[in-house]
Amino acid sequence: MIKDIEKIYIPTAVVGPIKIIGNYDEQVSVPLSTYEKPLWASVSRGAKLSMESGGISVTCIDDRMTRSVVLEGKDAGHLLKIKTQLLGQQNKLQEIVVNTSNHAKLINMHFQILGNLVYIRFEYTTGEASGHNMTTKASEALLNYILSTYKDLKYVSISGNICTDKKVSAINGILGRGKNIIAEINITKDVCKKILKTTPEKIHNLNIKKNLIGSILAGSIRSANAHYANVLLAMYLPLGQDAANIVEGSQGITYTSINKDGSLYFSVNCPNIIVGVVGNGKDYNFVTKYLNMLNCKNYSNSNTTNYSQKIASIITATILCSEISLMASQTNRGELMRAHELIERKGKNK
Amino acid sequence: MIKDIEKIYIPTAVVGPIKIIGNYDEQVSVPLSTYEKPLWASVSRGAKLSMESGGISVTCIDDRMTRSVVLEGKDAGHLLKIKTQLLGQQNKLQEIVVNTSNHAKLINMHFQILGNLVYIRFEYTTGEASGHNMTTKASEALLNYILSTYKDLKYVSISGNICTDKKVSAINGILGRGKNIIAEINITKDVCKKILKTTPEKIHNLNIKKNLIGSILAGSIRSANAHYANVLLAMYLPLGQDAANIVEGSQGITYTSINKDGSLYFSVNCPNIIVGVVGNGKDYNFVTKYLNMLNCKNYSNSNTTNYSQKIASIITATILCSEISLMASQTNRGELMRAHELIERKGKNK
Amino acid sequence: MIKDIEKIYIPTAVVGPIKIIGNYDEQVSVPLSTYEKPLWASVSRGAKLSMESGGISVTCIDDRMTRSVVLEGKDAGHLLKIKTQLLGQQNKLQEIVVNTSNHAKLINMHFQILGNLVYIRFEYTTGEASGHNMTTKASEALLNYILSTYKDLKYVSISGNICTDKKVSAINGILGRGKNIIAEINITKDVCKKILKTTPEKIHNLNIKKNLIGSILAGSIRSANAHYANVLLAMYLPLGQDAANIVEGSQGITYTSINKDGSLYFSVNCPNIIVGVVGNGKDYNFVTKYLNMLNCKNYSNSNTTNYSQKIASIITATILCSEISLMASQTNRGELMRAHELIERKGKNK
Amino acid sequence: MIKDIEKIYIPTAVVGPIKIIGNYDEQVSVPLSTYEKPLWASVSRGAKLSMESGGISVTCIDDRMTRSVVLEGKDAGHLLKIKTQLLGQQNKLQEIVVNTSNHAKLINMHFQILGNLVYIRFEYTTGEASGHNMTTKASEALLNYILSTYKDLKYVSISGNICTDKKVSAINGILGRGKNIIAEINITKDVCKKILKTTPEKIHNLNIKKNLIGSILAGSIRSANAHYANVLLAMYLPLGQDAANIVEGSQGITYTSINKDGSLYFSVNCPNIIVGVVGNGKDYNFVTKYLNMLNCKNYSNSNTTNYSQKIASIITATILCSEISLMASQTNRGELMRAHELIERKGKNK
Repeated sequence: MIKDIEKIYIPTAVVGPIKIIGNYDEQVSVPLSTYEKPLWASVSRGAKLSMESGGISVTCIDDRMTRSVVLEGKDAGHLLKIKTQLLGQQNKLQEIVVNTSNHAKLINMHFQILGNLVYIRFEYTTGEASGHNMTTKASEALLNYILSTYKDLKYVSISGNICTDKKVSAINGILGRGKNIIAEINITKDVCKKILKTTPEKIHNLNIKKNLIGSILAGSIRSANAHYANVLLAMYLPLGQDAANIVEGSQGITYTSINKDGSLYFSVNCPNIIVGVVGNGKDYNFVTKYLNMLNCKNYSNSNTTNYSQKIASIITATILCSEISLMASQTNRGELMRAHELIERKGKNK
Repeated sequence: MIKDIEKIYIPTAVVGPIKIIGNYDEQVSVPLSTYEKPLWASVSRGAKLSMESGGISVTCIDDRMTRSVVLEGKDAGHLLKIKTQLLGQQNKLQEIVVNTSNHAKLINMHFQILGNLVYIRFEYTTGEASGHNMTTKASEALLNYILSTYKDLKYVSISGNICTDKKVSAINGILGRGKNIIAEINITKDVCKKILKTTPEKIHNLNIKKNLIGSILAGSIRSANAHYANVLLAMYLPLGQDAANIVEGSQGITYTSINKDGSLYFSVNCPNIIVGVVGNGKDYNFVTKYLNMLNCKNYSNSNTTNYSQKIASIITATILCSEISLMASQTNRGELMRAHELIERKGKNK
Repeated sequence: MIKDIEKIYIPTAVVGPIKIIGNYDEQVSVPLSTYEKPLWASVSRGAKLSMESGGISVTCIDDRMTRSVVLEGKDAGHLLKIKTQLLGQQNKLQEIVVNTSNHAKLINMHFQILGNLVYIRFEYTTGEASGHNMTTKASEALLNYILSTYKDLKYVSISGNICTDKKVSAINGILGRGKNIIAEINITKDVCKKILKTTPEKIHNLNIKKNLIGSILAGSIRSANAHYANVLLAMYLPLGQDAANIVEGSQGITYTSINKDGSLYFSVNCPNIIVGVVGNGKDYNFVTKYLNMLNCKNYSNSNTTNYSQKIASIITATILCSEISLMASQTNRGELMRAHELIERKGKNK
Repeated sequence: MIKDIEKIYIPTAVVGPIKIIGNYDEQVSVPLSTYEKPLWASVSRGAKLSMESGGISVTCIDDRMTRSVVLEGKDAGHLLKIKTQLLGQQNKLQEIVVNTSNHAKLINMHFQILGNLVYIRFEYTTGEASGHNMTTKASEALLNYILSTYKDLKYVSISGNICTDKKVSAINGILGRGKNIIAEINITKDVCKKILKTTPEKIHNLNIKKNLIGSILAGSIRSANAHYANVLLAMYLPLGQDAANIVEGSQGITYTSINKDGSLYFSVNCPNIIVGVVGNGKDYNFVTKYLNMLNCKNYSNSNTTNYSQKIASIITATILCSEISLMASQTNRGELMRAHELIERKGKNK
């Protein structure tokens, strides 16, 4: 019942350069695939800002990939004993994991016991892959070991939804899943006025009233930003990533403050960027081209750079560009709608 | 700084037919764009199930689009008075809205007063458009009216994040945003065994332990499913939709029960499907082709069918297909990994 | 199996006066029952602040009490039809409600359809009672009517947990439950220094970093404050309220800003204060005494004052007193621990 | 401004015996302080159930107390380096902690870096105390060490709200705070019919539709139960606990399933029971009496029993009693209201 394998075409612009500092030091232009073309202008303005403000500093705080399994035992006491024993067998468990892949390594286990159910969230490093399949394979091997060791446990599921993949959660932000990246910039009053047509105070106040409080009022969970999802989608697609992961990626926090000299500190905090430079979707010509463009492809020659972390960092810097641009426009009454109409009118002429 | 506008190509399969009943009665094949090809097999199995089980019943529960603004007043008492007055001027406000568009209609206003801030969430119907821009335009007109009427109010933002667009929230599920669609199916034990290789009880139990409880343990918010985001992405792209809206779309709930005769009742509940058949992204040839394929294009000839609601319904039925297929495979130990490896090995040979 | 009905004794201090303006204009002292005596000092400092700053302005934004029922139908389409019909019978439903009580009035119905289940959240005004039992009784009558009218509906539960009583939720903040009260104060730099030993900027910054962002990082939901629960408990007990309602009461938001003249705007926003002046627990001598002390008892003589709203307002003003005092102390390194140790050492000497 | 220190009196019944097995093996009667007397009957029915069903098994899964501090650095990279260094100095940090108390021990540190802010959640064991003050004192000492070691860090707050105390969160359930206790019982069809007037299937189905799904629909977070808060309040008060901690205590999950023999498995899962047997509030005569009644007082003679964990376990078993009783009554249309009216009419006669 699968027919007609064909292709669809998403419009893609290369925007930049964005000046990146911190963990890296380079200027990169980025591909953005979207039907919503105002996004290109938005990133472009942020890119210009990065050039005039000394760059966007990126820091990789954490990197892990997870899969959770569920098992059923006799009762909570039974499961607590098994938990204790498994925590004492980490060498054995590591051995099982490394037999399933050259790249997977078990770095942590998080247990939640609920009645006679136990949820185990296995946390791995997965090299240059995003790690969806690698962690499933490793977790299946661990599951097989556990079930063969503890005969009175019963299989429930290879995925217990506390992983959690492509779904909203608090656990991914708290315990980590994917790359946890922070991007930061400092912007003087003058640059703020020249490029963003606004002031540091206006952006800082808008961040409090819209991103922090507005999100709290909306009943959001561990998320406070204007539109991270737009850039995530626009970059995951041309870079061959599984773009359904923008769901957890969207749960990030924009944090701002006013520096002593009156300049603006603006940061984008993305705890769940799930990307890789090998695996499904990475062999298309356009993906290779864009990974090369970002200096993220010939990873085999490198001992020091993790290219998956690098593209996650570039994506987060790009989010910062579009986030600050949109927020700046919303500080000025009427600007957002005017900008959209202008861009779309232009688009129609093409 | 925007360069090289080009295109990327996402692999797309047409999968089906899916038998749809309830609000519609037809068999449709659906386009699925993704780098993750196991999704095609997953939907295909669900499609087969729909054909052998009398169809997937779809119901549109609600349809609205929202935009929220923020204003600052003197104090809470001041804002409460203005709220009361605005609620008494609905005709005037409606007049302002209909002047901005032939399709927008104001259907509700939701106020949240916090200290000296007021957040107003305007709710509209937007005809056959998803309504992102239409609601911004209408809300800007309302904002201008409010600011000119109440001189002691100050503009804060055209978007106050309780709309809320492309971000996680509880408010969108509770108050509605986009199409609220339910898809349901009943599956006999025999069909369950034949097509899904499992039993109604196993699927029902997995839904409780994984989707309901696992999601609660993960700290999810108003969301309990296995992988709605995958189908949302795969269908929003070929249908020209703004796929960043999969974020709120992902927050849906899979609900199952066992019927008296032992058959399985399986439902997919998607309160926030944000799609349209006109607007940005709808003029590409492939989009036109697929909208036609779904009988959702020549909307001008119709007085009765809302085609936006129809594609939302088809998408939800397709989510049901992939959701039940994945869950069935997870009830059988080892099946998920085997299936993925099989499909990916095949893919490599091509 | 119920034995030995006896009494326990909770230490109670009367603290104040607190100057209240806005909906009321008076100075009140409040009873605070707690084992944690530093709370008394904390409220006392805030009370002093209210006297030197022109008072705490209180505003009642909303007042309603809710109960939700769950029913099972044939399918979602069936339930949607019933929803539409019920929305058209509001006079009939009101008649049923008023027959169950002299004080209950149905003011709204909120429906959530999930598969073949329908959750109906009935919203009432309940006069001077908190309304727990009144709304259960009215909802049972509505349920009986619905079940007798729609024979193919099945009873599931008189409470469907979207009410929601004594449990964490986003729905209570968004749709309202109990009294929604805002308390506000403006504090000059001088008064801030004199009484709170800190500055407006320090408190505002702490609110951003601790209450707003810290709560977001903790995975909180529609809640951002330092310790509302302490005052809620300490006042619900001596006023004869059901103190388990501090759970939803705790979900409030502290919002601050800096005024143009450099003074501090500080507000406490409590959407779910659930209290009454009649009903269970109100006939104890000490409760009568304290209700009188707050001028909230002889409600029968009044046509204009709602005393339930008044005690909710006084409670919210008291929360403001303790919230700002704790936050001020946390802006100064070392102060919190010193204060606690001092108070507890004193306590031991008694 | 603190006047008239007096006492209020909360009605208290001793209800039981409840049969407890698992970590303990005894029959205990429990004190319940409340204005809402139907709670006594509800616990009493559950107690009877425990006697006729072989007892309620209790398991202590975890025990820790937390306090979080916030600091400001130069940027995220700076904070990441400090995090790494602190993780390497656990012996030094432990030494600082044990100097502040005979009972506190540092068992874990959880870091969240957000822009140039770092939140550190210190996790301790605190012996027989609930640990509120002990952890503040230890955390202040750690904070002083960190600030004196890293001169370019700035103090923000001794509490950063990711602790988190008396507030709703996902973090407390995921990382632990207080005692994590599970209570379980198996109930035959016959006992279910005899004592609860219902069937295992009816209770299991109600748990799915009300506690699991109803709570999800309400936008709850890591919480799915009917009324844990009622018992928490009623037991925290007579046992001298800080009852504002019922806020996080209320976030627990009721999990049920049907055993192969048709009997009911019913469990109550409370990750955040915050109690102690020493400290504030424990020296009142009635507290001593009740702690003795629960065999939880002469802790000095014991090397093996942790009495704080024991009272947390008894509280959780009592929650199970009232939870199952209320749920049973809600499975039968009309029963809840009848029961309340009956009990309250009786109460009035007294």
